Amino acid sequence: MENLSGLKYICMKKKTKKILKKISNRGRETPFSPIRKFVPLLEKVKKRGIKVYEIHIGQPDIASPVQILEKIKSFKGKKLAYTPSTGTSELKLAWKKYFKSVGINFDVSEIIATIGGSEAIFFAFTAVCDPGEEIIVFEPFYTTYNSYASMVAIKLVPLRTFAKNGFRLPKKEDIERKITRKTRAILICNPNNPTGTVYTKKEIKNVIDVARKHNLFILSDETYREFVYDNQKHYSIMDFKLGRPRAVLLDSVSKRFSACGVRIGCLVSKDKEVIKAVTKFTQARLSLPVIEQRAIVPILENGRKYTKRIIDEYKKRRDTVFKELKKIPGVRCREPKGAFYLIAKLPVKDSEDFTKWLLTKFSFKGETVMVSPASGFYATKGMGKDEIRIAFVLSSSKLKRAIKILGKGLQQYEKAISRK
Amino acid sequence: MENLSGLKYICMKKKTKKILKKISNRGRETPFSPIRKFVPLLEKVKKRGIKVYEIHIGQPDIASPVQILEKIKSFKGKKLAYTPSTGTSELKLAWKKYFKSVGINFDVSEIIATIGGSEAIFFAFTAVCDPGEEIIVFEPFYTTYNSYASMVAIKLVPLRTFAKNGFRLPKKEDIERKITRKTRAILICNPNNPTGTVYTKKEIKNVIDVARKHNLFILSDETYREFVYDNQKHYSIMDFKLGRPRAVLLDSVSKRFSACGVRIGCLVSKDKEVIKAVTKFTQARLSLPVIEQRAIVPILENGRKYTKRIIDEYKKRRDTVFKELKKIPGVRCREPKGAFYLIAKLPVKDSEDFTKWLLTKFSFKGETVMVSPASGFYATKGMGKDEIRIAFVLSSSKLKRAIKILGKGLQQYEKAISRK
Repeated sequence: MENLSGLKYICMKKKTKKILKKISNRGRETPFSPIRKFVPLLEKVKKRGIKVYEIHIGQPDIASPVQILEKIKSFKGKKLAYTPSTGTSELKLAWKKYFKSVGINFDVSEIIATIGGSEAIFFAFTAVCDPGEEIIVFEPFYTTYNSYASMVAIKLVPLRTFAKNGFRLPKKEDIERKITRKTRAILICNPNNPTGTVYTKKEIKNVIDVARKHNLFILSDETYREFVYDNQKHYSIMDFKLGRPRAVLLDSVSKRFSACGVRIGCLVSKDKEVIKAVTKFTQARLSLPVIEQRAIVPILENGRKYTKRIIDEYKKRRDTVFKELKKIPGVRCREPKGAFYLIAKLPVKDSEDFTKWLLTKFSFKGETVMVSPASGFYATKGMGKDEIRIAFVLSSSKLKRAIKILGKGLQQYEKAISRK
Repeated sequence: MENLSGLKYICMKKKTKKILKKISNRGRETPFSPIRKFVPLLEKVKKRGIKVYEIHIGQPDIASPVQILEKIKSFKGKKLAYTPSTGTSELKLAWKKYFKSVGINFDVSEIIATIGGSEAIFFAFTAVCDPGEEIIVFEPFYTTYNSYASMVAIKLVPLRTFAKNGFRLPKKEDIERKITRKTRAILICNPNNPTGTVYTKKEIKNVIDVARKHNLFILSDETYREFVYDNQKHYSIMDFKLGRPRAVLLDSVSKRFSACGVRIGCLVSKDKEVIKAVTKFTQARLSLPVIEQRAIVPILENGRKYTKRIIDEYKKRRDTVFKELKKIPGVRCREPKGAFYLIAKLPVKDSEDFTKWLLTKFSFKGETVMVSPASGFYATKGMGKDEIRIAFVLSSSKLKRAIKILGKGLQQYEKAISRK
């Protein structure tokens, strides 16, 4: 029963009506993070003394660079004050140097430092879309895009990509079919989270062609830029003369410098109107955290050695995971060429149920494993129900063990399901 | 000239059309921060060797507590990792203890740690309003409310408050007149930025009565809670039994602990739906900055002594500013009872022009002063054109000098204007 202002009555006492205050639709509909959703179960299973191999979340186990830790400790200021909203010149210069080291040239005025790559995503969505407007995405995609789309009240229009061909981008004509009067941008994540796909020159050119034809922005999340294996070459959107003018590059220090907790990212664009809009957004939230902003500078300016070392390590992990998964009957996956994830198809009907079961009803020699059910990486309901995402965030030997346990889990789960 | 998809042509070359990509309306319409707007001019005037007394921005000059600085340096972790999205239990417990010390009882489950009070404002707006919905505010108000309202596409419905009566809140009937089917909340800032007003029990009860009658949330920004002078008593929204169930409390460590750069705030509510929605929002941005989150805990748990000391200092400054302003012919202001700002009416037509003039065309014995024109603190266009906000963020002796320079500036500006 609804009253005039759309509120529900929960009960009628004598003459008093108790009325629920209504939170917003976006407050109600924003999804919980599918990656973080089962953390309460994780806590419970740990309390039961079971060891959990956590390969659900992209939180590297690798030690952060000592340069950051030392710079934190060396802070001598007496005042923890506001800093310029778009980042200190020191930080923006460091980003400029970083980009130069990977062959991309930006002016400092084209760089905005953000509180993590997350904020870059939020700002980009808000700068290019009004409520109800649309961004084309390729699913499966990074779950945070879903959350922010809901929060800023825009629509992600998904195009499927398929495990069977390595989650390659669709043909131009298929992308164009999704364009409406409300489409404002195409969003790509390259190398891709969660699929590990590294896009070819052709794939990126196709996106650029469509964007030019329909005058769209291209939001390019390149957080995993250096994470490419097997002599793959990574092409940034900024490598393409025709892509550059309409590109909004989103990036983060989190993965390449194993520093997820410092919350430093950036939004970079040659489009002056985008930079102007995002500058205003940064002023709303005043400034970045002062300590991390300063501490990240040395490694950001000069981090190639550190990054190279950890890429080699991630490659070994990728090899291990893929090799071990291939041993499990019924599991299908392709070898990812980038990032540090893969999507595996399992012989289950509901991977969310399987994920929960692994945490609540299963253990193998006192151990279990936590993965991410892939349905949360899709905008289209019902997709990814038989898929999981695995993150290579443990050592190769632990990953080997984790995948073995996964295999045991699948065996027992199949039996448990067939008994129902 | 607009084409079918609403884009503008900027020129027609032979057969090629060059088309501007269109950023969002909200990207275009979000205002620049009126407080930060003149910073480029500030940089220029400093380069000319002129000393500037900066009383435009609420950035305390006071040293941050040593407890924070020591805790930063004592970080021994090897990994700068993600932390729980709503804050570590340590931080949330520290907030709980802080609130208890000021007589407010919360359960840890009712507390969400945010990246500054700014993020608390953003989350609150997004949790209670869908695009196009409305929040009643009392102007003049903190400029960031305007920015976030634009970014999240909601409408702030302003009710004027008046210098001549100390910016007291309007009568109940006047507040009710502004309520529409789209109104979802009333927002108060108490003690008030920019006016320094401390609301009475009656004023807050009026807001609660209206909110209950129309089933609205009450967003209460209490960042300046301890900043009350002259034996004023501060009443939190949480002191009112009938206010509590519909309150969303917004707070920050920035001002009471002179730690604006650490970016730690909170959103607290007994409304479980609000907490649920905001929890999901925090998961989108993953986590708080790891170093500051840890470093703020000791002072947050046990900061009364530090806060008491700085309040005494701010009182002296308040006294000085008020006393010196009264000496300047044509300047009108009331003595603020809280926060660390005041709004002064000047004998000028356009305080924004005057502010710029002070930075570009004026100096007195090699010195000038930077203030905030007050028009940016109003939603209603044309308001505040003869007002400025002054922040008590320098020592009393410097403030005395600053106000004297302001007086000289006004004299010369009057002459300059009359010569035009």
